[in-house]
Amino acid sequence: MKIFRRIRLLALLIVVLIGGCGCSKRANKHDKKCQLPDDLAEEIESYAPVVRVIVNEAVNGSFRGVVWRELADFVDKFGSRLAGTRNLEDAIDHVLARSKEKKLDNVHGEVVKVPHWIRGKESATLWKPRKKDLAMLGLGYSVGTPPEGIRAKAIVVKSFAELQKRANEVPGRIVVYNQKFVSYGKTVQYRSRGASEAAKLGAVAALVRSVTPVSIYSPHTGMMEYEEGWRKIPAACITLEDAAMLQRMADRGDELEISLRMEARLFPDLESRNVVAEVLGSDEPDKAVVVSGHVDSWDVGQGAMDDGGGAFISWGAAVLLRSLGLKPRRTVRSIMWTAEEFGMIGASQYVQAHKANESNLQLVMESDIGTFNPLGLEVTGTSIVKCVLEKILDLVPGIGPLDIRTPQAGPDIEEWVNSGVPGASLWNQNDRYFWYHHTRADTMSLESPQALDRGTALFAAVAYVAADLSLDLPRHAPIKTGKGNYLKNY
Amino acid sequence: MKIFRRIRLLALLIVVLIGGCGCSKRANKHDKKCQLPDDLAEEIESYAPVVRVIVNEAVNGSFRGVVWRELADFVDKFGSRLAGTRNLEDAIDHVLARSKEKKLDNVHGEVVKVPHWIRGKESATLWKPRKKDLAMLGLGYSVGTPPEGIRAKAIVVKSFAELQKRANEVPGRIVVYNQKFVSYGKTVQYRSRGASEAAKLGAVAALVRSVTPVSIYSPHTGMMEYEEGWRKIPAACITLEDAAMLQRMADRGDELEISLRMEARLFPDLESRNVVAEVLGSDEPDKAVVVSGHVDSWDVGQGAMDDGGGAFISWGAAVLLRSLGLKPRRTVRSIMWTAEEFGMIGASQYVQAHKANESNLQLVMESDIGTFNPLGLEVTGTSIVKCVLEKILDLVPGIGPLDIRTPQAGPDIEEWVNSGVPGASLWNQNDRYFWYHHTRADTMSLESPQALDRGTALFAAVAYVAADLSLDLPRHAPIKTGKGNYLKNY
Repeated sequence: MKIFRRIRLLALLIVVLIGGCGCSKRANKHDKKCQLPDDLAEEIESYAPVVRVIVNEAVNGSFRGVVWRELADFVDKFGSRLAGTRNLEDAIDHVLARSKEKKLDNVHGEVVKVPHWIRGKESATLWKPRKKDLAMLGLGYSVGTPPEGIRAKAIVVKSFAELQKRANEVPGRIVVYNQKFVSYGKTVQYRSRGASEAAKLGAVAALVRSVTPVSIYSPHTGMMEYEEGWRKIPAACITLEDAAMLQRMADRGDELEISLRMEARLFPDLESRNVVAEVLGSDEPDKAVVVSGHVDSWDVGQGAMDDGGGAFISWGAAVLLRSLGLKPRRTVRSIMWTAEEFGMIGASQYVQAHKANESNLQLVMESDIGTFNPLGLEVTGTSIVKCVLEKILDLVPGIGPLDIRTPQAGPDIEEWVNSGVPGASLWNQNDRYFWYHHTRADTMSLESPQALDRGTALFAAVAYVAADLSLDLPRHAPIKTGKGNYLKNY
Repeated sequence: MKIFRRIRLLALLIVVLIGGCGCSKRANKHDKKCQLPDDLAEEIESYAPVVRVIVNEAVNGSFRGVVWRELADFVDKFGSRLAGTRNLEDAIDHVLARSKEKKLDNVHGEVVKVPHWIRGKESATLWKPRKKDLAMLGLGYSVGTPPEGIRAKAIVVKSFAELQKRANEVPGRIVVYNQKFVSYGKTVQYRSRGASEAAKLGAVAALVRSVTPVSIYSPHTGMMEYEEGWRKIPAACITLEDAAMLQRMADRGDELEISLRMEARLFPDLESRNVVAEVLGSDEPDKAVVVSGHVDSWDVGQGAMDDGGGAFISWGAAVLLRSLGLKPRRTVRSIMWTAEEFGMIGASQYVQAHKANESNLQLVMESDIGTFNPLGLEVTGTSIVKCVLEKILDLVPGIGPLDIRTPQAGPDIEEWVNSGVPGASLWNQNDRYFWYHHTRADTMSLESPQALDRGTALFAAVAYVAADLSLDLPRHAPIKTGKGNYLKNY
């Protein structure tokens, strides 16, 4: 029975992929050719009652507020969770224990090697033209300064182009980047490669204007990378306000002198764990829909938005399905990734370790750009995948119009998505996301019970239907634009 | 000629005040009875050409950007300017020197006694249920802790009512106020009297959630007051984020333990100065329109918004009139008040010292709620005063619709306004004012050249016409609601 149904669906899909058919009721906004065969459309529609149960339980039932409480307990208990710390491992143990209490299947940590970078004490002070402490946060992977610090004249530039133009002024100086915020994806390069670009011209340190459109004197940390073959110089972010002040002073012709002291240091790798917990599939347990977010965070704030919320709506989706006694055909696998902040370390090692089973992945989902009010999903996949997901979203009642859009899904699922696995990330009302990103203000104050319930409902509904569908979702062609492509849209 | 005109106007005003007349062209939104006698309306209209010259010079002419540059030079050079510091006096000397360079008249400082409170080093740490540093700022006038600090269990309350209800839990505790932000005027009482209310019940210190609707983990300082007869306990503000976290922990039943260390101390009063600079009146130099803002600030940030911008558009208005060679009948007097942040200290002493000449005040103007894009004036006065100011604003070309509204003008002009002197404060697009108020983010980044030009243009135009009018503006009845009434609207 099932086999026949599947063959019929596949045949229909081939028809659709070759020439399209006029069978679906609703024109797809994202791809005019995207229409589902009637059988598949009907099959998806048949999930309406169970989706209603899932969503209702999350939004109005006994599951209401559960994810907020689990997340609040977690972030208040552990605070920030930097990779390489005992605190992160304790937090992971907490999630493992909670997963067992919630009777999830196959609960375990998968060991991976993660960087062990510590910030240590750090400070920056302007000495000329006026003494002023500069709020700062060292950037992840940055080297420290000598114990006595660095004190040097500073040059302020608005772009890499200006840096190049003024190359002769750079040797021996601290380079202050006062780049304009265009978008996160476009502007973050100053944080990532500002130090090496400055080092190539002989600078002794780099201070980078925080990558945010709005500031209340808040420095934003984040990862940086050293380019091989060039001197590693210390790098930190400063506030928009101080960057603007230094620019004004420089524009006036004032000589700037700044001191920087950072104890930052990279130690040998340590072990951490990706946290896996499943709702085992009834028919094809080896096949899986992954729901995920990352468990680590920067060492400031509580990591509630980045990415406690994402990790917990994913985990909460599995817990919700279990609490409802729902068992889809394929497995729903919740993964909390470790060491995302140091470059998707946990996800990358997981992908490599499970390469042989990659063809078993039905759909990989992630939430890592906020868990504000959900708007839908950001999907990477064939037009069939997009149509299927859009159709599933159409079944989700009462949490506003949900839609799909097509920025590339990422970051922890990016390797999979790049190799052709269908991917979907939570699309949410995160207009203020970068105001708080990687700051001390990434706290539980940004998370609302309602939005978390809705995000959980959406993830649970989509994961359940995708895991239960008779159709194995098709692969898309590998994406060759490389790492960080998803950033383009932020 | 002038005398006759004035008598005729006064006669007409009496008619208006008794019964009104049907002579003005435009219905006044604020008071239906408010219509100006034709003569007065015509007289005001006759200023259209000079107002155009003033505004054009500020917005498009050689004065364009001048106020922004003067303010930026000032706040970048001196930074924050706490009353009682050498730095504030140096900043005052700078303004006196600039005023002389700009050839203003009667440039001088008027000595007043100001509080000498210092913050010193300070910190707060949560110890139970988890160690976490709490960002904080001691409140102005707060006493310090013993050198070893205070370490005590904490109680979190959402209101004074809850504090009273839980009075038996307070002795020996640190009281954390996690009051909801309603409006600045309504919520600031927790900052002002939270310490004494807690002390009455035996608390050892008070931590107050910062008075702001939005936070990026930013503590907001400000003044507090001790109620006579009760123990003075240390008081500081904490962030919205930490207040919410402490609330969650308390709600869970966690025992909270917090340590507080503050070196804050109040020393004997010192001398500071109100800064006066004038455009002397041609006919009646003893009579004056005051334009003002305060020169001091809290000791964090740059005091650019509170109140560098206000002080400099007022001063800039006088400089602009002088640079245009305009000499109104009455004097235009720029005053930069000192020690506003400690309770309008400079203004209060000025008012007392000049009580005998109070009847010579034509209009007192102030800008101390931001210098964002101007929307008009907040006016306290008779309906005639409101009509006159509205009519003057109607003459101001090209900087958007300007209007008047009637929150009580203040704070530094409040004593005058309370005693019947017509008052006008800058009404501006300051929706985000309290996001930055009394924080390290009160910097030049909040000030735009265009908005400052427009504010200066508005102040110069209104001050000039009000100072030149044939009519002495009438007094209103004294206001008996007392100090801080203007706060009601914020």
